[in-house]
Amino acid sequence: MQSFEIDKTDLLRIKTALEGSDAELQQVLQQYHTSEIAIIFEKLQPEERERIINVLTAEEASEVISEMDEEHHPAELLVNLTPERRSEIVEELDYDDATDLISQLDESDQQEILREIDQEDATNIRALLNYEEDTAGGLMDTDLIKVNGNLTRNEALEEIIRQSEEMEEFYTLYAVNDDDILLGILSIKDIIKAKKQVTVQELVNKDFVYVKVDLDQEEVAKLISQYNLNSIPVVNDNMKLLGRITVDDIIDVMEEENTEDILKISGVSEDEELSGGWRNAVKSRLPWLIINLGTAFLAASVIRSYEDTAAKLPIISAYMIIIAGMGGNAATQALAVTVRRISLSDLTDRQAYITVFKEFLVGMTNGAANGVIVAVVAFWYDSNPMLGLVMFLAMTGNLIIAGLTGATIPLVLKRVGIDPAVASSIIITTFTDCIGFLLPLWLATKLLL
Amino acid sequence: MQSFEIDKTDLLRIKTALEGSDAELQQVLQQYHTSEIAIIFEKLQPEERERIINVLTAEEASEVISEMDEEHHPAELLVNLTPERRSEIVEELDYDDATDLISQLDESDQQEILREIDQEDATNIRALLNYEEDTAGGLMDTDLIKVNGNLTRNEALEEIIRQSEEMEEFYTLYAVNDDDILLGILSIKDIIKAKKQVTVQELVNKDFVYVKVDLDQEEVAKLISQYNLNSIPVVNDNMKLLGRITVDDIIDVMEEENTEDILKISGVSEDEELSGGWRNAVKSRLPWLIINLGTAFLAASVIRSYEDTAAKLPIISAYMIIIAGMGGNAATQALAVTVRRISLSDLTDRQAYITVFKEFLVGMTNGAANGVIVAVVAFWYDSNPMLGLVMFLAMTGNLIIAGLTGATIPLVLKRVGIDPAVASSIIITTFTDCIGFLLPLWLATKLLL
Repeated sequence: MQSFEIDKTDLLRIKTALEGSDAELQQVLQQYHTSEIAIIFEKLQPEERERIINVLTAEEASEVISEMDEEHHPAELLVNLTPERRSEIVEELDYDDATDLISQLDESDQQEILREIDQEDATNIRALLNYEEDTAGGLMDTDLIKVNGNLTRNEALEEIIRQSEEMEEFYTLYAVNDDDILLGILSIKDIIKAKKQVTVQELVNKDFVYVKVDLDQEEVAKLISQYNLNSIPVVNDNMKLLGRITVDDIIDVMEEENTEDILKISGVSEDEELSGGWRNAVKSRLPWLIINLGTAFLAASVIRSYEDTAAKLPIISAYMIIIAGMGGNAATQALAVTVRRISLSDLTDRQAYITVFKEFLVGMTNGAANGVIVAVVAFWYDSNPMLGLVMFLAMTGNLIIAGLTGATIPLVLKRVGIDPAVASSIIITTFTDCIGFLLPLWLATKLLL
Repeated sequence: MQSFEIDKTDLLRIKTALEGSDAELQQVLQQYHTSEIAIIFEKLQPEERERIINVLTAEEASEVISEMDEEHHPAELLVNLTPERRSEIVEELDYDDATDLISQLDESDQQEILREIDQEDATNIRALLNYEEDTAGGLMDTDLIKVNGNLTRNEALEEIIRQSEEMEEFYTLYAVNDDDILLGILSIKDIIKAKKQVTVQELVNKDFVYVKVDLDQEEVAKLISQYNLNSIPVVNDNMKLLGRITVDDIIDVMEEENTEDILKISGVSEDEELSGGWRNAVKSRLPWLIINLGTAFLAASVIRSYEDTAAKLPIISAYMIIIAGMGGNAATQALAVTVRRISLSDLTDRQAYITVFKEFLVGMTNGAANGVIVAVVAFWYDSNPMLGLVMFLAMTGNLIIAGLTGATIPLVLKRVGIDPAVASSIIITTFTDCIGFLLPLWLATKLLL
């Protein structure tokens, strides 16, 4: 099986079915998984999506909508449905998915939907809407299975079956006391195997990992990945069980964070929609380019201040762009390794010093290696051994600067609380460009003129 | 709770305990989760790790070793243990983890360990060693719970409890026929709730997602993420159930693939160990820098061929490095968005054309915006309106080229089967550098001299 991609046949089949009766459409849709329909939706017009949502069962419709990528505005689909249909669908959603969806709407639409639906659901969703979207609270689902520690094995099993009626998968079972304070986690296996007079308290595993409700989602992802968890309970400061986060939600967080990392390190705003329109892309990228333009003028001013040298030695232009360009490349390498390392785990001060020193050694070695090549070219091709020496020194120097800045700047930004991926690349290119022009020009002025 | 980071206190406590008796060491270690010990191991000497592995229970030791990052060579730890201790630990490991570990050893060590351990385990591990590491087969675990479709509800429940004895979590239950052909998946909830005379066949869910054993791990990750799965069964061409892959293994794959993407896009070999030594880093980065140096000479040759223009108009050097640098930045933006988009889902031909056209529009708009700024500077600062026009045209032209190459090159590389992240960045910098020097020099020669 390959991951699902819509080909023309699928799209044609759906488009044709959209011309026919509801029954025909339903029959064609039955051949697709709900997450496949969510992907097909990306290619359809709003009114076509609406038609499909209306012929699916409420459960299927809720699955399709919750699988849709936020970029394709699933919430807007909801607004155009009849209040009855909308309520049915929202009630089928997990609370966390319903909250994500509703939070994308404006205040008046939010209130309207919350008035229409079952009031218990509305209360739960209202509570979740209060948490920041990118924290444990924003990510958690309040639908979970919890049993009181005082129940016996048989009572607990009955309770689990009762509570699981409305859930697809229960992942982990939680044991709580009368005040909903989390006592620990339970294994369904242990419960099935236990004798009937045993109480839940005796079966509880008290050695478990949990998160506070305001923890950043990236930290939640790190924990789930580090401890290989299926799900993690979310508690308040008093250890009261508020919800739980499952690993499938974390996969979405990881993809989101990774996309952001790659975009930010390349000078693209993290808000740019990958498949968005060109205006969205201009808005996301132009500010960075203009900042870069400012730093480019700075680098250019280095060249201007050595106009005499360039006039007396025109060949130096061709060399200094090589030195500056290579500095940029080497700095990008050091930056990528350091940023990725920081995003996988925080570094201690000692690890940070070691990293910077390592990049110094790497810069010196790679600088010397490339410097020798450039020097040989200057010697053979331009018959100018002294120029070769200048370029060897400039290349080595600039690649040392590249390594040092590529490692130091993200580490410093992280320490002062700025996202290292965002700002690093502009700062380091400014360094390697300026030094890349300054070093050959200055050395040439001293040694060649 | 925060994700675990070792601070000096933890390290000092462990180091002190290592001086003391086994009992003291055990007591200190008990305060840490096995995945925390795996992180602490990164800071310890090989002989210290060995001592700790020897005082833990075999189960704990197996957990620590399987949690260790491959970078820190967990397999080598195994080689130095006594054969008895080693066997105990390997037998505690899941088959997939044991296989990963053993595959890191050389042939003779592999054979020695496989001879020592329980022969049923050895047979299973030998079978897994045959699969490529980065395919479904290399990722799967053969330890799973499967029940015959002909069993009744009660027989099935008994069978599940029996098979789950040795497993920590069972995720999904599989139903198979007498030939181990996969019939579908079972829900523990459905089994618990079913009447006792019902057979497994009647409870089976036949609408499930599976993968073939030779599928690439990246595709497996896409499927698990797309269908929000906990685990996915792995089958051969005859639908015989071979194993299953769980979502926690996929999280590791995703982190690995994302690290590779960020490194490759920045010209770092995917094999570079993030926390490896400087020699490893030089080996991984120097080849790319030398290729880049070759392309930099190419760009420099453009400047050489317009030496007359540069001599007559020295100010042009400062401007052309701005044009070339901005082209590199804009191309990096287009490249990052396109590469990330490709890695999240493949693009149809039509989507590919739209993407390229979008990047053309973005390049033109951003080029014109930055071009105006540069033109204004040339007009006011250098009092040369014609130079302003040249730079406006060059900037717009180079940013269009940047957008087109940034989008087209990864798409073309993907189509011809080359990893777009690897080669794209070098190719596009060559383009934007060459065009970035050529356009201002050529235009200046035509319009200004």
